[in-house]
Amino acid sequence: MIVTMRPDASEDEADDVIALLRGDGYELHLIRGAGPVAIGVNGRPVGAELPTLLCDMPGVSHVHQDKKPYKLATRGVRPEGTVVRVGDVEFGSGLPAIIAGPCAVESRDQVLRTAEQVRVAGGVMLRGGAFKPRSSPYSFQGLGEEGLEILAEARAITGLPVVTEVLEPEQVDLVASYADMLQIGSRNMMNVPLLRRAAATDKPVLLKRGFAATIEEWLLSAEYILAEGNDNVVLCERGIRSFDAATRFTLDLNAVPLIRELTHLPIIVDPSHGTGRRELVAPMSLAAVAAGAHGLIVEIHHDPDAALCDGPQSITADVLTEIVSRVGAIGTLLSPIEPLIA
Amino acid sequence: MIVTMRPDASEDEADDVIALLRGDGYELHLIRGAGPVAIGVNGRPVGAELPTLLCDMPGVSHVHQDKKPYKLATRGVRPEGTVVRVGDVEFGSGLPAIIAGPCAVESRDQVLRTAEQVRVAGGVMLRGGAFKPRSSPYSFQGLGEEGLEILAEARAITGLPVVTEVLEPEQVDLVASYADMLQIGSRNMMNVPLLRRAAATDKPVLLKRGFAATIEEWLLSAEYILAEGNDNVVLCERGIRSFDAATRFTLDLNAVPLIRELTHLPIIVDPSHGTGRRELVAPMSLAAVAAGAHGLIVEIHHDPDAALCDGPQSITADVLTEIVSRVGAIGTLLSPIEPLIA
Amino acid sequence: MIVTMRPDASEDEADDVIALLRGDGYELHLIRGAGPVAIGVNGRPVGAELPTLLCDMPGVSHVHQDKKPYKLATRGVRPEGTVVRVGDVEFGSGLPAIIAGPCAVESRDQVLRTAEQVRVAGGVMLRGGAFKPRSSPYSFQGLGEEGLEILAEARAITGLPVVTEVLEPEQVDLVASYADMLQIGSRNMMNVPLLRRAAATDKPVLLKRGFAATIEEWLLSAEYILAEGNDNVVLCERGIRSFDAATRFTLDLNAVPLIRELTHLPIIVDPSHGTGRRELVAPMSLAAVAAGAHGLIVEIHHDPDAALCDGPQSITADVLTEIVSRVGAIGTLLSPIEPLIA
Amino acid sequence: MIVTMRPDASEDEADDVIALLRGDGYELHLIRGAGPVAIGVNGRPVGAELPTLLCDMPGVSHVHQDKKPYKLATRGVRPEGTVVRVGDVEFGSGLPAIIAGPCAVESRDQVLRTAEQVRVAGGVMLRGGAFKPRSSPYSFQGLGEEGLEILAEARAITGLPVVTEVLEPEQVDLVASYADMLQIGSRNMMNVPLLRRAAATDKPVLLKRGFAATIEEWLLSAEYILAEGNDNVVLCERGIRSFDAATRFTLDLNAVPLIRELTHLPIIVDPSHGTGRRELVAPMSLAAVAAGAHGLIVEIHHDPDAALCDGPQSITADVLTEIVSRVGAIGTLLSPIEPLIA
Repeated sequence: MIVTMRPDASEDEADDVIALLRGDGYELHLIRGAGPVAIGVNGRPVGAELPTLLCDMPGVSHVHQDKKPYKLATRGVRPEGTVVRVGDVEFGSGLPAIIAGPCAVESRDQVLRTAEQVRVAGGVMLRGGAFKPRSSPYSFQGLGEEGLEILAEARAITGLPVVTEVLEPEQVDLVASYADMLQIGSRNMMNVPLLRRAAATDKPVLLKRGFAATIEEWLLSAEYILAEGNDNVVLCERGIRSFDAATRFTLDLNAVPLIRELTHLPIIVDPSHGTGRRELVAPMSLAAVAAGAHGLIVEIHHDPDAALCDGPQSITADVLTEIVSRVGAIGTLLSPIEPLIA
Repeated sequence: MIVTMRPDASEDEADDVIALLRGDGYELHLIRGAGPVAIGVNGRPVGAELPTLLCDMPGVSHVHQDKKPYKLATRGVRPEGTVVRVGDVEFGSGLPAIIAGPCAVESRDQVLRTAEQVRVAGGVMLRGGAFKPRSSPYSFQGLGEEGLEILAEARAITGLPVVTEVLEPEQVDLVASYADMLQIGSRNMMNVPLLRRAAATDKPVLLKRGFAATIEEWLLSAEYILAEGNDNVVLCERGIRSFDAATRFTLDLNAVPLIRELTHLPIIVDPSHGTGRRELVAPMSLAAVAAGAHGLIVEIHHDPDAALCDGPQSITADVLTEIVSRVGAIGTLLSPIEPLIA
Repeated sequence: MIVTMRPDASEDEADDVIALLRGDGYELHLIRGAGPVAIGVNGRPVGAELPTLLCDMPGVSHVHQDKKPYKLATRGVRPEGTVVRVGDVEFGSGLPAIIAGPCAVESRDQVLRTAEQVRVAGGVMLRGGAFKPRSSPYSFQGLGEEGLEILAEARAITGLPVVTEVLEPEQVDLVASYADMLQIGSRNMMNVPLLRRAAATDKPVLLKRGFAATIEEWLLSAEYILAEGNDNVVLCERGIRSFDAATRFTLDLNAVPLIRELTHLPIIVDPSHGTGRRELVAPMSLAAVAAGAHGLIVEIHHDPDAALCDGPQSITADVLTEIVSRVGAIGTLLSPIEPLIA
Repeated sequence: MIVTMRPDASEDEADDVIALLRGDGYELHLIRGAGPVAIGVNGRPVGAELPTLLCDMPGVSHVHQDKKPYKLATRGVRPEGTVVRVGDVEFGSGLPAIIAGPCAVESRDQVLRTAEQVRVAGGVMLRGGAFKPRSSPYSFQGLGEEGLEILAEARAITGLPVVTEVLEPEQVDLVASYADMLQIGSRNMMNVPLLRRAAATDKPVLLKRGFAATIEEWLLSAEYILAEGNDNVVLCERGIRSFDAATRFTLDLNAVPLIRELTHLPIIVDPSHGTGRRELVAPMSLAAVAAGAHGLIVEIHHDPDAALCDGPQSITADVLTEIVSRVGAIGTLLSPIEPLIA
């Protein structure tokens, strides 16, 4: 059961609800920050009269009960949707937000140059990996803290907030001290200790879908973060594994309208990993936005064929400029589609 | 190797090329009808000097050689793309063409009513199954020839051309005597005797992707039709099978720009089967068109919850009207995107 | 609902049951041939008192009701299992039966030589394709009727019954006039017209699992054959498609004990297609039998590297001899495992 | 390139090889412990004359070069196979080793009782989770260190070595202080920081396959452990995700002979997770061993229907006894099959 307070409810009103529930011995999960306070109640079955009682308390907006295994992430908790803010950037409101940058931080020069291209092209955030998860121990594993410093310098110059991946719990504080948003990568979607540690910072979290995770498992991973009290979570569809090697992954755009129906959290799409082929990034960017995505995260490189990782799926600044322009046009066109989607 | 003639080449010029190649003992596959004549040459390795010799012959546009296993379907044969015409409807040119209608023909009244709704909503073709492929012997298997007669009557009234599925070689002539376009369904994509028999009619063929077929296998199935001399083939992405049961199938929109890169044949998308959920049909229709699809095929029903098949994925006429309108807007917006895609 | 007669029930007793049910307006499906008569009842809900009434009729063994979508194929119809006989060969009783032979019939000499090797090695049936389903129109499509004649000659010489694939309804009578058992291949598992036509012959049917078919879909395809009155169906697991290209397919041996639990039909395994790699055929043959398979179907070739199809997965006669010997030992060892499985 | 020393080579001889290679500036990875010393050489291309030079040095057995992305895990490094020892238990030599125990440590009484059952049934190691990776934050997450203490007590009583899962790098030292073998679970197969930390202990590692990992990715994860100098790695196939929900996962037994061909590391199979259905555990255990597995890991529970996790796939002690007996018989029968497999 979830109790959602009204946007204009006072702290005292929320505290009264909390006190009543704690007094009855329930375990509570509080979510606040990105919208009205929501109070998750679990631990044991709820008495039949409790929902009505709560509804009548001052400041309570509504009480939500369903059988979904994720409780705090379910749409009913915040039917109007959560807006996640990273600096001035908003996910879940307005036109789609476009994040761009290199797969990996390779050098200061590369990142500063690319960040400037992102800004000029109309991207609103910078991505780039300082710690890289690689299948092989013999592949480039990232520059580490040096990479984080480069990203921070790029932010200082361009004004673009930075999102970068964190690979292990012990790294979280270090990465959070540089980044504006923490990325949990596809391979770590079910890494619970990492989810919990990232949630415990005050940073928004970009949670990529595991490449073989069901929608329900993905939302349960988000639930781990929400249950720690951090509701600044943006979901990212980035392709699932299928039987066909024609593309690196199968970008599952069905997930976009489905996620919008099931949860209040915003969703963006990664067409670079989701296709693995440079020529497909532009059309699939447009498709993602037409399906209802709140943003994109795209890999660009000033010289894709020389990239240390993911060269085949990196686009140039020119293509990014074109994507930003067309995504804006589609986003404007579709803003009245909301009622059709959810 | 494929020899493509110029659009303005005379029949005599084509005949000269054919005669030369036959004289050298090559096995030839001719494709004509939907564009300039193309001559597929196979059976044995080609001499090194032959391409140059052919290029110099009158009326020859270009000679194409690549290592793809499909020879006639490959993009290089007709870089400008094939336009398939069904009555006044064009696939591969102009705005996306929207086919709509019920999953199955259930009754005369249902089809006539639905066809009129399709016409009013702006759909350009009518779909509907008279012979239904069903997993269970105890499910409704379609009305058979009676269903074909109903479809023909709906065409007579509305002017909409009709596409309907054919399930076995022996049925092809019967179905072709009623339909304007023959549909090969997902389960029959690798049914070679059926592909060959359908190709041998003078009807265009709508070739759905097998739900577990790779892109290459799909194009090889198209190649069977082309190799019989019928180049009026429209491909249809309709969802692939994945590990997640959240949607009935995973609509693989990556296939859209990829197919446009690999082949000259037009591609449309079926968001009804590709999602299996009514609420996802509208957003995925828009996504398909934004990805570059040349059209859509959508299931509608005047009373979806009472449908004899596929009710959960059927939309109403109101939603269809909305889709047609928005697809038109996106199509108009994106017409200059061509250079980005292929 | 299924009514199963006792093995010693008279025809008159069965007729009485049938008459009673027909008199009540039920649609019936009769299965006989490979065991006691079973009468499938469907078409409308069954009255609450009917099962008890039927149980009391002379000759009735038991009445079975469950919610599985396949009615005649469900285990409860014949808990003791169906034994399918092809000449002297039994599937579903005794030691595992091993079918072997070339992928495709390439020549008279090849088949006669291979058939003799199969016989000497201890194989009990000969396989070989005269009509080949191929992804590409440019691949070898089989020798057709000439291939059937060669198979028949090999049978005459060695005494081994012959199983061969049939690709389309119109071919069924021709193939049935030569073969002892009709194979429905993986790509045709859902080809209903073909299933029905094959069922209508008096030949046993080997029904391969579609490479992307669920267990339930597979049993529903078997149900189509049973519903036509032919209960001589042997199922064959031959690998499913997965995300890993390390093997051609993923042999799903879970299917073996599961099929034995769900249906009374016997199941065999094809480790050649199920692995696509020669070195894996022997260990996976043993694994299949240890999992409870009633037999194997294996590709062998006298010169695998020169085979016109499937060379990489064909084994030599020496390996076949070794497999037959070890399969026999495991089969003997495991005969008391039955209670553990189902 | 890998240089493998002879079993009887002296430390000085190995040191000479190492000194020569370091002198030439190569980066080296040494594996020792479970067999003859092997020296992995990478970092830059190797001169053409170097292999011959090395082969002539005293104590060198052979020099192995191939293009596989995993260097130390490849079969050629130790063609005779690696034997991993945990106490008196051997993986990779002798009869298959059977590990059994509950999914989760629920209570002292449960574990002591189950451990005694495992010992009596003939199991050689005890499994049980103290830290549980769960999809939902609301599921039982394990007893933590209390669970480790219970496992240690069970070992003290029964003499069975203990394997248990470790979920995060910071937990490794704690878990290693109790366990005899560290398990890296399926969801953590690509958790590189965890692989590295586990490798740095002196404990053998049980590396489960990711449920959507390719064989190559799995071996690359093993390579991370080997590259840290720990060659006591046992691989465990535990089922992959497929499109069919009939079983919880698809147990990929093709992996068993394939892994034996590709790597020198031993492989065991988990039929409990690999099927998710109690009735399938016994037949799939036998199948795994017939395919060549070096052992099994099985979930048992004294009261499966009351288990806090994985009850539907847990077997009873009686079935375990039966499995141990039959696995022993098949193992004995098949010991001469080695030449067929690899």
